[in-house]
Formats: sequence, structure tokens, C-alpha cells
Amino acid sequence: MKRKLRYGMVGGGQNAFIGAVHRMAADLDGQIELVAGAFSSDPKNSQKTGKQLFLDPKRVYGSYEEMAQLEAALPADKRIDFVSIVTPNFLHTPVATSFLKAGFHVVCDKPMTLTLKEAKVLRNIVRKSGKVFALTHNYIGYPMVKEARELVRSGKLGKILKVVTEYQQGWLLDKIEADGQKQAVWRTDPKRAGASGCLGDIGTHAENLGRYITGLEIDSMCVEFTTFIPGRRLEDDANMLIRYKGGAKGVLNCSQISCGKENDLNIRIYGTKGSLAWHQEHPNELQFIPKGEPAKTLRPGNDYVSQAAKKFSRLPFGHPEAFIEAFANIYLEAVAAICACIEGKPGGQFDFPTVDDGVHGMAFLETAVKSATSNGKWIKFVPI
Amino acid sequence: MKRKLRYGMVGGGQNAFIGAVHRMAADLDGQIELVAGAFSSDPKNSQKTGKQLFLDPKRVYGSYEEMAQLEAALPADKRIDFVSIVTPNFLHTPVATSFLKAGFHVVCDKPMTLTLKEAKVLRNIVRKSGKVFALTHNYIGYPMVKEARELVRSGKLGKILKVVTEYQQGWLLDKIEADGQKQAVWRTDPKRAGASGCLGDIGTHAENLGRYITGLEIDSMCVEFTTFIPGRRLEDDANMLIRYKGGAKGVLNCSQISCGKENDLNIRIYGTKGSLAWHQEHPNELQFIPKGEPAKTLRPGNDYVSQAAKKFSRLPFGHPEAFIEAFANIYLEAVAAICACIEGKPGGQFDFPTVDDGVHGMAFLETAVKSATSNGKWIKFVPI
Amino acid sequence: MKRKLRYGMVGGGQNAFIGAVHRMAADLDGQIELVAGAFSSDPKNSQKTGKQLFLDPKRVYGSYEEMAQLEAALPADKRIDFVSIVTPNFLHTPVATSFLKAGFHVVCDKPMTLTLKEAKVLRNIVRKSGKVFALTHNYIGYPMVKEARELVRSGKLGKILKVVTEYQQGWLLDKIEADGQKQAVWRTDPKRAGASGCLGDIGTHAENLGRYITGLEIDSMCVEFTTFIPGRRLEDDANMLIRYKGGAKGVLNCSQISCGKENDLNIRIYGTKGSLAWHQEHPNELQFIPKGEPAKTLRPGNDYVSQAAKKFSRLPFGHPEAFIEAFANIYLEAVAAICACIEGKPGGQFDFPTVDDGVHGMAFLETAVKSATSNGKWIKFVPI
Amino acid sequence: MKRKLRYGMVGGGQNAFIGAVHRMAADLDGQIELVAGAFSSDPKNSQKTGKQLFLDPKRVYGSYEEMAQLEAALPADKRIDFVSIVTPNFLHTPVATSFLKAGFHVVCDKPMTLTLKEAKVLRNIVRKSGKVFALTHNYIGYPMVKEARELVRSGKLGKILKVVTEYQQGWLLDKIEADGQKQAVWRTDPKRAGASGCLGDIGTHAENLGRYITGLEIDSMCVEFTTFIPGRRLEDDANMLIRYKGGAKGVLNCSQISCGKENDLNIRIYGTKGSLAWHQEHPNELQFIPKGEPAKTLRPGNDYVSQAAKKFSRLPFGHPEAFIEAFANIYLEAVAAICACIEGKPGGQFDFPTVDDGVHGMAFLETAVKSATSNGKWIKFVPI
Repeated sequence: MKRKLRYGMVGGGQNAFIGAVHRMAADLDGQIELVAGAFSSDPKNSQKTGKQLFLDPKRVYGSYEEMAQLEAALPADKRIDFVSIVTPNFLHTPVATSFLKAGFHVVCDKPMTLTLKEAKVLRNIVRKSGKVFALTHNYIGYPMVKEARELVRSGKLGKILKVVTEYQQGWLLDKIEADGQKQAVWRTDPKRAGASGCLGDIGTHAENLGRYITGLEIDSMCVEFTTFIPGRRLEDDANMLIRYKGGAKGVLNCSQISCGKENDLNIRIYGTKGSLAWHQEHPNELQFIPKGEPAKTLRPGNDYVSQAAKKFSRLPFGHPEAFIEAFANIYLEAVAAICACIEGKPGGQFDFPTVDDGVHGMAFLETAVKSATSNGKWIKFVPI
Repeated sequence: MKRKLRYGMVGGGQNAFIGAVHRMAADLDGQIELVAGAFSSDPKNSQKTGKQLFLDPKRVYGSYEEMAQLEAALPADKRIDFVSIVTPNFLHTPVATSFLKAGFHVVCDKPMTLTLKEAKVLRNIVRKSGKVFALTHNYIGYPMVKEARELVRSGKLGKILKVVTEYQQGWLLDKIEADGQKQAVWRTDPKRAGASGCLGDIGTHAENLGRYITGLEIDSMCVEFTTFIPGRRLEDDANMLIRYKGGAKGVLNCSQISCGKENDLNIRIYGTKGSLAWHQEHPNELQFIPKGEPAKTLRPGNDYVSQAAKKFSRLPFGHPEAFIEAFANIYLEAVAAICACIEGKPGGQFDFPTVDDGVHGMAFLETAVKSATSNGKWIKFVPI
Repeated sequence: MKRKLRYGMVGGGQNAFIGAVHRMAADLDGQIELVAGAFSSDPKNSQKTGKQLFLDPKRVYGSYEEMAQLEAALPADKRIDFVSIVTPNFLHTPVATSFLKAGFHVVCDKPMTLTLKEAKVLRNIVRKSGKVFALTHNYIGYPMVKEARELVRSGKLGKILKVVTEYQQGWLLDKIEADGQKQAVWRTDPKRAGASGCLGDIGTHAENLGRYITGLEIDSMCVEFTTFIPGRRLEDDANMLIRYKGGAKGVLNCSQISCGKENDLNIRIYGTKGSLAWHQEHPNELQFIPKGEPAKTLRPGNDYVSQAAKKFSRLPFGHPEAFIEAFANIYLEAVAAICACIEGKPGGQFDFPTVDDGVHGMAFLETAVKSATSNGKWIKFVPI
Repeated sequence: MKRKLRYGMVGGGQNAFIGAVHRMAADLDGQIELVAGAFSSDPKNSQKTGKQLFLDPKRVYGSYEEMAQLEAALPADKRIDFVSIVTPNFLHTPVATSFLKAGFHVVCDKPMTLTLKEAKVLRNIVRKSGKVFALTHNYIGYPMVKEARELVRSGKLGKILKVVTEYQQGWLLDKIEADGQKQAVWRTDPKRAGASGCLGDIGTHAENLGRYITGLEIDSMCVEFTTFIPGRRLEDDANMLIRYKGGAKGVLNCSQISCGKENDLNIRIYGTKGSLAWHQEHPNELQFIPKGEPAKTLRPGNDYVSQAAKKFSRLPFGHPEAFIEAFANIYLEAVAAICACIEGKPGGQFDFPTVDDGVHGMAFLETAVKSATSNGKWIKFVPI
């Protein structure tokens, strides 16, 4: 491209967390500029945010509908190329639909929708639109996660036997939604978050991470949801046993009431020839133990890592990159896909989560809810 | 006591692993001496072992029955005070029975018996005998495990919500029992190991550890056994979801096919006021995170640890103690109980696993097998 | 400010490392935009870089002199607010001088100059100019480094007794300057790097870090330089013993031939009431051991960290930030100072390294070279 | 041998630390039995200790002179084979001399003597005696230290360029000798400890460890001693720069006032082909980074470790061994040498520190004191 891409944002006003992350991730590589936004359902908040971001007030909108409509009406060399959707879950579908129909590419936060049904509808809309739709399962943006996938793909682990995934947080150990803590309020409200709390919020990341690295498909699962905090409306702890197609087994343990745990997403993968371990809070280390050999600690930027990982490092070895950089890696790939579209060369291979991953994630959640609400019966996962 | 205790050993001949561990643990503190043994079902092996251990050949026996009988016939100031049983599982009950009936105290390796029924029979025998029966769930001998229990007991964790336990090994990733590897051969043979492989061998340690620290009682469990290695007769991987009485939840994941894992027993406990983490391979560190505070790394020998932990350290802080010392701590307590009996002062409080723990462990295994063989149904754990 | 700051860059063309880092750091927070540059002494390279950065070709200059002159001639609402200097060391002074004299604020990479004499000259120029001059000792931008300083300042460590600093890299273990590796070529050339190699390149960061956290002033030092790689013109390893004013002692060990070390800057500080440890490669953990208590691991974003640290976190706890974010924190403060100047409110307190730190760093290097070249005599550090 | 070795102990009475360690180390492997002792200069304390150790009261002596004389007078099948000397430093020489002259082998704690002169005298006595003299520099008994040496010897590190050694403790941060803390009292008394405090007590271990692994000989050193605690008579902190013969460089940093440090001995070795790192507090991990490859974590008991390391493991991988086991490894080798003498087969190769290492250690200390007391001049180390 001969110019920076222009994007707008829906959501991400005052006190929002993930909107600011998207903006930093988008800004980081100097390829994209924010030019428009509908940052809040409250137009004042939206304008205030726009001002802080040095936006032209005319392009700070009072609603996403307005934004989609008015941006589409701008000349091609002014209007946004894509929209980033960073609202609570229940708005993802209507916002995405508006912008796709108005001819814009979409970057959307996860989980994709409130229900599987809705996810399938959105998938159809995306397919018809011919537009790029990227879902920000950001944890797969880490170079060492790319390296992990590469090690699996290249056969270094042999046949995968077992996958142990954990995502432990402790921030919901108190009933902070009762105090109006904004992040907690919508995440514990079924109408805005969907039928699952903890699993929808963080378990889907864990599932996505495991699937991304191993490529394994779930056959069936047995799930235990617990709501530890009295009066909370969605589960704040979710554990499951998994049977994968082909015989591998899985254990997934996620929680938002694990005292002192901050954002402890980790995965360990055991194969017939080697094993891997990766922890999000120490993202620049990937432990790989080839059978019969000492554990190796792989770190980004070294000659010994694969091209697939190298491509996503910005700095030389020993200069740690972290959450924002990984998030930016999702943007880099989505933007590359969008540029390819704009330049009339679609069909390339890009490494970002798509609407299909979103549908998959919702199917995962629905299956889990089904098991959890049938007293922990094993439930078949139906491929979608 | 004014003298060292005398003990004999059944099992622990050439190429055995755990027998040598018991001997080092018993020797370490200079309170006990080995004076007799029936080290192998092969009398030549037994004599050879006895010679290496500098034993009087007359007290190296061809069978445990002979040993029980002849030792009992020795004068009181010569005969053994107790026996250590370090045979494969299927022999624990007959050997223990022989020695208890001959009037000896018993230290026995775990799991206690082949079946729950047998365990209950043995419990009756122990009760009638009035003798000390100690089961070597050695991992509870670590000072930092004592400290963990103390933190729970003193309320520092608040109410326990979740227990995550793992015991991962990789040494059975190949079918080494087919090559006659002695440790593997009996552990994969239902006749000698019992109805469970991996869970019986190592999962019981994990269960015992969790129960020792938290005191939680299992309400029900949902279990998945897998035999990954074709032709193996017992499961080599076992995962389970647990519901504890009172509402806590558990995840237990154990495996003997986890490539590169050596002896990775670890436990994490989450309460309303704090959480704990302990790893057997780094046994001198206990992570404790009080709610809202930084993680603390507790280490043995410091003034800040409890008396319960201090009692089991031999060295000043920074001088690491490990597996053998923890094992020796089980012996220290068992020996203290035996001495109290000998000196006519029974009834004291000692900190070692008893026949009741052995029965509990067998009930745990039988419940797990029941769930695993009913396609992962949730099964009630029946208190025993 | 009601607009983004505009900046230009000198240096940072093709294959440069630190220029790209500055740009990402500057872009990250959406407060600054790059609008001009003289990226290389080769005008073609400069234009190529400008194009990749989507700059107006008219504002991509063939030399820094031209840039300073022509930017100064632009109208106030177009011209740059400040320049970032990311050239090899020998150009820092002439470039900074040009821009300061043309009325621009300056952000400059370290070490500040080639010699102490030159540093003092530059200091005078800065003072006369009344402009902001920020030196990118980026490692002090990490939140946990801020926290470390705060712990020292608040007396939590008591009186500081000992400071152990290390900066170990291994990338110069081969004579890669002979192969034309661009980063190595100028860093091993006394004309472009100055009288010190390893110590100037990375040891100054270590010294700056220690001084930033502890506030200790060096009294004297005893230094050993080694050039391990035959034919290399500057030392690639430097070790020193330090006596601080007031009685504390220091050990500083830095190297660029430590095989396998990537960018291992770390510091440990021992006081009468507590000690600290921080490692750049795991920047989100600060170990603090209060006397008589367990080690605590402090992590950013938690309520228990100081405001001084919190101010420099962008994400909630558990979402790691790293090198670029720390670098961006230097920019944030420099930009705040520049904005204050522009808005006519100079004199505020800002937390970034200044020209005085640059002079101090050069005095440190000259003293070290003096000791190293007098066979390791103790040399007094003369305050400047 | 067809019997256990018999040994006696001098020192190690009530409240002593190292005596108990020697006994546990000696007991651990069931090859040695304690049969005599002069545990204290106070005969009552000595008898009390003997009773606790279940010794025949006739063989608990009131003085070491008496013990040497009377044990020598016992019949060959009763008297001790060797003596373990675990007294404060100033007694090592007279006690060792008495027993060597009485015909006994000696195991002696470190540092060997009070002065270099004394060390050379003792060396002559040992040489004339033809007896085994083993010095318990116990840290070289760790399997991973053996592995480290093996990696150096086999050329895996290439030429050694740099050695960084640290030994940090914090237990002398308060002036506990003033409160009569027994361990502190003699260690801070020049008459009983020698001319160096911290360096003699722990720095010698660090020096010995480095020399054991690398084989490097010191050319000269520049040393800074500090006594941080007012009124203390010996240094409590010692740092040095080292020049090795052949061009390698070293940094040694040791301290007993490093708040919160327990027993943090660690060493890092950098060569042209690889580097190593080992920490005593995590003794079962050896980090090895071959040039251009990921860091490898080597652990004992695995097939990939050398025979030299394997020989000193008692347990399978993942079953941690620690301080006592490493100490016992010194005994194992000393005992093997003693047995060879007894069996008339001297001259074998054994892996324990000898009287030559003791002389070397004293020369190291004298050179260090010379440098430290000449205001940090570089002083040549004179080979002895």
C-alpha cells in the first residue's frame, strides 16, 4: 500500500479496557491510522474520547449505525477502510453486520457473538460480503505460539496425545459487579455476555490457543461449571475433560476466582516425540522437550526459531515483546489481508482468526453449556 | 529410646528402586538400623543384597514368612522392632498380615493393597494388633507441604474453593514393560498392581497430598482413563473432575506418558483469602499469594515458617533438602510412634499416613475405576 | 495539547535497529506523529525509508543540516516540534546542536557523546537553548524499575549497602564486524563509538539504571577491560568494583561475549532492611525481600504498587508489557515536558534522563577508561 | 569391603551445625558407622552428644588428644578407620595432625587451616603419613557440578573466557555474634576463623567450585573487603576481579550481609562454544547454552548426562537430591579411597578435595587479604 490504512472504532470509550489495547496494537507498526469512531452509546463520552484521540469531531459519531452510513458516504480517499469492534459481546453481531453491509472490512473482539445461531448468521453475512473479518483471539499473535504450532506441524512432537490448558484469573473473586465495576458488570450479565461467563470470556481463548497450535478437533467434552460467588449470574469457574478425534485427551481448567492469579493462560502439549509448554505471562519462552533430551527454552528472534515465528518479532533477541505486540500481530495480518483486497489480490494466506473460528468458538461454548447443565454428561461436539 | 530401633525389610533386592530409598530414609537420622531382610523371592538375590548391606547372613531370609517367624523367635533385645514392606502392591497385605500377627510394627509402601476389600481386611488386622502401621505417602513429608497444611488450617486461605493437582511423568511413553524393565513390568500388570495403573501408582500420591493439605472430602468424581500405549493392560493416563463436600471443585490430571516430565507432582489451592502452589521438583519453595498482596515465596528453615514445618527441616535455610529427607520425615514420625508403643506410652499425635489413609486411597481408586469404566459418569465417593 | 506532536528523525534508515524502536515507542500512545526525517547519510536510503513510513517526500531530507534548516523555515503549524536522534554515537552532538540551535527540542539515543568534553559542550548548548533534551536510557522506563526506585526512596530497603549490576550479551562472540554486520561495525569503531565498546554500549545503561534506582554517587572505581576477540578495537567485556559515597559497594559486570546471553541486564540491591532484584528479560517481576520475610514478587498493575509505577502501565495486571512500552514511557515523559514548554508552562517535574545524565554517563566512561588503561588502579570519579 | 567403615568425630556437639551434616552424610549410604567421638571441648556436652548418638560411653572422649591415643590403642577390628574433623577452623590442624600421626585417615571441614603456612605444614604431614585426607568442599559433590566439569572437559564450552561466581548470604546482616550466636561468634573471630571472614567462610567454596569445574588457574586478583557491620572484626563482604592464566577473566562476589539471601552460591561460565549456569539452591538444574542453540536445562538421572554425573545420583530423574546427598558424595569418594588403602590398593582415582586443595584455598585467601589490605592493588597469585 502506498498509504496508511484508515480505520474507525466502535466501542472503546472512557474506562474501557480493550478499546485502548486495539488502538495501541493498531498504532504500533505505523501502518494504520484511526480516523473515526463511535466510542460509546453515550454521544458525550464518544466525543470526549474522540477529542483525546485528536480526531476530527465530524467523524466522531453518536451511534454505530450513523457511523456506518456516513462513513460509507464519504469519498473513497477519505472514508475508513475497516472498523474495529470493541463493544461488549451482545453488540458484535449488529455492529459487524452494519459495517459489512456498508462495504467495510471488520476486526472484531471475541467471543464473536452471543449464540451459535447468531454466529452462523454472521458467517453467512461475512461470506456474502467478500470482506475480511478478523477475530482478535490475540494470544495466537505471540511469536512463541507461532513457533509452537510450527513445531507441531513439522512433526517434532510426533502424534499429540494430551493437551492441558489453563486460564486462571482471580479478579472476580469479589462480587465487583455489584459495585458497578464496568468490566465485571457486562461480563456477568447473560444478556450482554451470553450463556457462559468465565468460559466465554477466557476459556474461549484457551480453546482457540489449543486448536491453533495442535489442529486437534474436539470429539466430546464433559464440563463442570461453578458459580462460586453467591448471586453471580454466570459461572466464574469452568473445568472440562476433553476427548479429541483421533484419541488425544484434554484437560481444560479456567477460572476467574483463583486468588492472586492475574492472567495465567498456559498450555502444555504432550506428543509421542516431544512436549511443549507456554505461559502467557512469560510469553517469550517456549519450553520444548524432545524425547530423551534436556528441556530447551526457545526464545524469539534467534536464528533457531522458524520463519513463522520470526516474522512476528519486531526486536532482536533479549528485547522482550509482550501483549500489545502480540495483539498488533493480529492486526498486521488482518491489515495485510485487507490491503490485498483493496489492491485486488485476494486469496492470499494470512494468519489471523476468521469468522469460522468465531463460529467454532460459539459451538464450543454451546456444547460446554449443554454438558454443564446436564450435570456433567459427556456431550458430542458437532462440527460446524 | 536408649537404643537405635532395629528393622527388617521385605523386598528391595537387586534393581529395586524403592527399597533403597527406604533404607536411605531410615538411615539418615541415625535412629534406626537395618538388621534383617527378605529382599527377594529369589533367595540368592536376597543373600546378595544382605551381603552388600553388611547384614548377618543368618538374618537374611528366603521368604517373608520365614522372616516373620524366625525374627519373632529371637530374644527381645535382638529381634527387629518393625518391618518395612517395599514389595510390589499385591504382596503388601500378606506380608503386613504376617508381621502384624507376629507382633511387629509395620511401615508399608503405597498403594496399600490391591483392592478396597483387602484394605478393609488389613485395617481390621491392624486395629486388632494394636501395632503401628505407617504408609509411606512420602510427599507429605516435605516441610513446605507441612507449611501448606498449616496455612490452610490457620485460615490464611479462607474457604477453599478449588484444588488443581497434577502428577505428570513420562517414563512409560515407551512400552518398556515389553523389554522387561522391572519397575514397569509389575506396575502395568493388574495382578500385581491392582485395577489401576497410573492412578494407583502416582495419582494416589496426588490425592493424598491434596487431602493432607486441605482436609477436603470428595463428594463425587468423573474420571477418564486412557491407555495410550497399545497393548498395555492398565491406564497410563488419568484425568478427573472432582466435587468436594462443601462446594469446592477439583481437577486432577496425572499421566505417565507426558514426554519429558520426570516426576512433576504439583498442587495449587485457591481459597477466598489466598492461594498456594507447590511443586515436588522444587520442594523448598511454597508460593503463597494472600489476596491483594504480592506472591510470597516461602522457604524452609526461616523464622517465618510454622513450627509444624520447622520440625521437619534438618538444615538451615538455603541448604536444600529433598526427596530422601522428606521420606525420612515419614520414618521419623513412624519411629516416634513405634518408640512410644515400645515405651508403653501410646496415643500420642504423630504425623504420618496410617492404615485409614490406605483404606481411603483404595476407596478413591475403586471409585475412579468405577467412573472410568462407566464412560465417565459422575460417581459418588462412599466414605469408609 | 490539542493536537499530536510532530517529530522528525535523524538516522534510522534501512537495517537500523534503534530507529524502528524509537518510531514504535513514539507511535504507541497515539500522541506523536512522524512527519519528517533524514534517515541516512545516503539520500536514496533516506527516501526509501521515508516512503515506507508514508512520509511526504518533501520532508525526507538528504542531510540533517538541511532538515534542521528547512524544518525551521516551515510555518509553525507544520514544522516538527522535536527531533529524535538515532544515529551512531559520533553524530549525536553535531545533530543535536543543529536542531537545538534551530529551535527544536531533542530526544537523543545514548551514550550521549563521544567524549566527556563534548558532553559538557552539549550541556551548555542545551542550557542556553531552553529546550527539552531527553536521553533514551530506556530501561528506566519499566514500571517495575520505577517501583524499585520508589521502594528505595520510601526507605523500605533501609540504607543501601551493596549494588550488583550485570549486563550480559553474547552477540559479539564472533567477529561479526569483519563481515560488515552494521550494528557491530560502528560499535567496535572508536571513531564512531568512542573510547569504550562494551561499557559504552551497554554498561552505561547498567550504571544509569543503578543510579536511577538507588541515587548513589560513585566515589571511585577499579576497572578491567578485556578484548576477547582478536583484532577487535574496543573492549568487549568490562568488569568493575565500585566504591560509592557513603560506604556502599558495587560490582558491575558487563559483556558482549557471554555465549547465549541475549540482553541480560539485571540489578540486585541490598540494604539494611530489604533487598531487590530485577531482570530486564523478565521485566514484569520485581523481587523484594523485606528483612525476615519471604521474598515477594511484585508485578505491575496491582493495587499494591506505587503510583510512580502505576502511571507507566497501560494494561491490567497479568497482561505483560515489555521493551517497546518501557521505551515509550521515556517518550511519554519527554513529550509531556515538550508540551509544557509549548504551552508556556515549563518547570514541571518529568521522569526522563536529561543532558545531565548524559554528562554523568560520559564521566563514568572516561573514569572507567582511565582505570582500565592504568592496569586496574582505583580512580576517583569526579562529580561534574 | 566386607564391613562398614568405622569413624569417629571431633567437634559436632550440641548446637553445632556442620557436625550433624557430616553424620547424616556419612550415614546416608549405609557404608559407614559412627563409633567414637570427642564432640566438644566440654566433656559433659561430649557425653551428652554421644548418648544421643547411641555410642558406647567408653568411646566418647573428653579431648581429641585422648581420642587419638586411645582409639589407636584399640584392636584393629574395633578402632576407627578415620576421623571427621568438624571443629572451628583453628583446630583443624592440631586435630588432623594428632590423628594422622596416630595412623588414621582424615576427613576435615574447610577452610583447611588458619594460615597458608600452617596449610603447608599440614600438607607435609599428610604426605608423610600416606593417609587419605579429604577436605569437605561439599558443593562439588552435586551431580550437576560434576556434569558441568564434564562439559568443560569434553570441550563443549570451547575455550573458557569468563567466570562469574557469587556466594550471597544474609545471615550476618545483624551483629548476632554480639548475642552469642555460636556460628557467628567463631566465624567473626580472627583467632578462630583466620584472617578472612566472609571470604574464608564461603568465598573459598566459590573459588573451589570454579576451579573444580573449569580447571583455570588464577594469575592475579584485585580484592575489596568491606566490614559493613560496625564493630565486626572480619570482613562480611568481599568482591574481586580475577585474571586467570591464559587470558580468562573472573568476577567473584560474596557477601554475608545480602538481605534475604539464604545460601545463594552460583556460578556462570562463558566459553567460546557455550555457557553454563548453576545455582546451589536449585542444584538439580544445570543450564547449558551451546552457541546458537536454545538454552538446555540438564537434570540428573537422565540418560543424556555423563557417567561422571550419573555415578553420584541415588534416585531416578525427577526425585530431587540436595545438600546432604551432595555432601555424602564427598564421603563416598573419600571412603572409597580409604577402603582402597585398607585393602592395600592405593593409587586409584577418586573425586574428592585433597590437602592440595586445602593449601590452594589458603593461598587464595592470603592473596586476597594482601590485595584487600593494600587498597585493592592487583596481587599475583603464587602457585603453591
